[in-house]
Amino acid sequence: MKKLVNKVITSLGRDGYQLDKSISSYHLIGILFSKGIQAVRGVFLKPFLKESKGLIFLGKNVKITAKSKISFGRTIIIGNNVFINALCKEGLMFGNNVSVGDNTIIECTGVISHLGQGIKVGNNVGFAQNCFIQVRGKVVIGNNVIFGPNSSVFSENHNFSSLDVPINMQGVNRKGVVIEDGVWIASGAKILDGVIVGKNSIVAAGAVINKDVPPNSIVGGIPGKILKYRN
Amino acid sequence: MKKLVNKVITSLGRDGYQLDKSISSYHLIGILFSKGIQAVRGVFLKPFLKESKGLIFLGKNVKITAKSKISFGRTIIIGNNVFINALCKEGLMFGNNVSVGDNTIIECTGVISHLGQGIKVGNNVGFAQNCFIQVRGKVVIGNNVIFGPNSSVFSENHNFSSLDVPINMQGVNRKGVVIEDGVWIASGAKILDGVIVGKNSIVAAGAVINKDVPPNSIVGGIPGKILKYRN
Amino acid sequence: MKKLVNKVITSLGRDGYQLDKSISSYHLIGILFSKGIQAVRGVFLKPFLKESKGLIFLGKNVKITAKSKISFGRTIIIGNNVFINALCKEGLMFGNNVSVGDNTIIECTGVISHLGQGIKVGNNVGFAQNCFIQVRGKVVIGNNVIFGPNSSVFSENHNFSSLDVPINMQGVNRKGVVIEDGVWIASGAKILDGVIVGKNSIVAAGAVINKDVPPNSIVGGIPGKILKYRN
Repeated sequence: MKKLVNKVITSLGRDGYQLDKSISSYHLIGILFSKGIQAVRGVFLKPFLKESKGLIFLGKNVKITAKSKISFGRTIIIGNNVFINALCKEGLMFGNNVSVGDNTIIECTGVISHLGQGIKVGNNVGFAQNCFIQVRGKVVIGNNVIFGPNSSVFSENHNFSSLDVPINMQGVNRKGVVIEDGVWIASGAKILDGVIVGKNSIVAAGAVINKDVPPNSIVGGIPGKILKYRN
Repeated sequence: MKKLVNKVITSLGRDGYQLDKSISSYHLIGILFSKGIQAVRGVFLKPFLKESKGLIFLGKNVKITAKSKISFGRTIIIGNNVFINALCKEGLMFGNNVSVGDNTIIECTGVISHLGQGIKVGNNVGFAQNCFIQVRGKVVIGNNVIFGPNSSVFSENHNFSSLDVPINMQGVNRKGVVIEDGVWIASGAKILDGVIVGKNSIVAAGAVINKDVPPNSIVGGIPGKILKYRN
Repeated sequence: MKKLVNKVITSLGRDGYQLDKSISSYHLIGILFSKGIQAVRGVFLKPFLKESKGLIFLGKNVKITAKSKISFGRTIIIGNNVFINALCKEGLMFGNNVSVGDNTIIECTGVISHLGQGIKVGNNVGFAQNCFIQVRGKVVIGNNVIFGPNSSVFSENHNFSSLDVPINMQGVNRKGVVIEDGVWIASGAKILDGVIVGKNSIVAAGAVINKDVPPNSIVGGIPGKILKYRN
């Protein structure tokens, strides 16, 4: 049975997939059963989306609003308790092999008096558990990007130039965020509005990034600073 | 229809409200329907509260315990999966226009051998998603305060003066926290026990604040330091 | 009635337990009722576990997979919305008096092509709300350890030696984590793979720990540095 599973997963887009040898058939059947239920949930989601090119595995207690604004590529995996609100100007677009971990929030509306712009995610991108992706300005995420657990992206900032008006009445400022191909955003890191994270860079755990990150660099700390280059 | 919605929201306390022009009628109806359900849930909550002066919009899977310890002002918005435990000595008191984002936890009990003191929140206060407000010592939050996603407040600390007894058996220390009017606590920031955050100050993303913050200042880093003043 | 409750809780392993005098009988009955339901849920979980030596208090919406890989000591408390995935090589083992806060995730599988090693937790250990415990390499947690809200443990790291292959295709590296007796991991702190946190040490709020922590020390910051010693 394991061989069959290896073949099926390989055919879904993961080359040379091999199950761990210590998984018992009992647990494997449990996993397959659970994956089957997730795929069935996905079938019921599909017709409501703007576009969907392949299988969708949908966890429990997932809440997705403005489904007609969503385009999915092939093999999309959405964990339990995920909340995706796709109501925004340009919608939400995922490439192939995108996974969204448990409890992750992708929030594109903000306030209905001022919708978010939109989000575009490339191929082979993984959001781990408890991520928070705030879409206000445009958010563009490349291919092969890893988001660690608890990491977050913000694409707006409060204005605070006046001391005479409370900040929550001064409105917001939206520049958008770009995360280029091959980036790893480690656990708990925060990417703030206006930032471009360059190709193949690594944002270390817990970092707060408020300035552009050059390609091939490793940045960390609060505020994020270049620690070294990857070469 | 949009004009009508603008008027209704304005009358609920948001002056000059204007819907985003790119919202379709289809999505607007969805939002209104969902707000309607939230308001109905609120109606069923109201009689159990100590006091409630206006509408309550209540999300899905909200868990509220010790409801009789809660006083709400006008127009309270509680997101999905919020957990509020109000069992404490002085209870939980919200002013007008307070919103609590998805998954946020406001926990006032701690342990039933030593209840928390209580929490008082002013008008026009927003807690974003995934906030954690720990009420042990008294927590006082002014008007027009913004809590970014994942920010937290702690109002107790473990004692650790002895090396001969494990910390979890040395008990706790509770001083309480005060956050004055007009403060912005940015994403992921942590306010620790004993701290007063002065009027109109900004606590930057990811900061850990263990000392008082003077008014009109911007603080950041771990531990939090004054970065500049707002003027 | 309060006296009776004090006696029962003392007999469950907490010496000299005393309820807070300000709890009303009304709220106390509510708490007892809710604890009763949690204990009943625990009774239904027990037969599926590998081993369970005492009472289990189980919250709402808890998801536990690979139950047959779990060994529980006496008096285990699992909060609401907790997710425990125990599918790994050596399983999950809890000592006595272990509590797991709301929304906490203990994830032992990672990917089914490469299962996690296992986790062993001592006696009198508390995981607060929103903790994230990633079990890939072996995770060993001693007795009397406190995990603050939002703290996390990681026991794998992505490899990133090559610039020609995306990081998400370079595989991972697993060393494991050891947290010795009496440690306090404060709110939001992150313990990264390969780290040993020595006996009785304190990891300050928001710290990111990527190197071993000597016993009896207080460490903080990003990356974590020794701030002082406890003596």
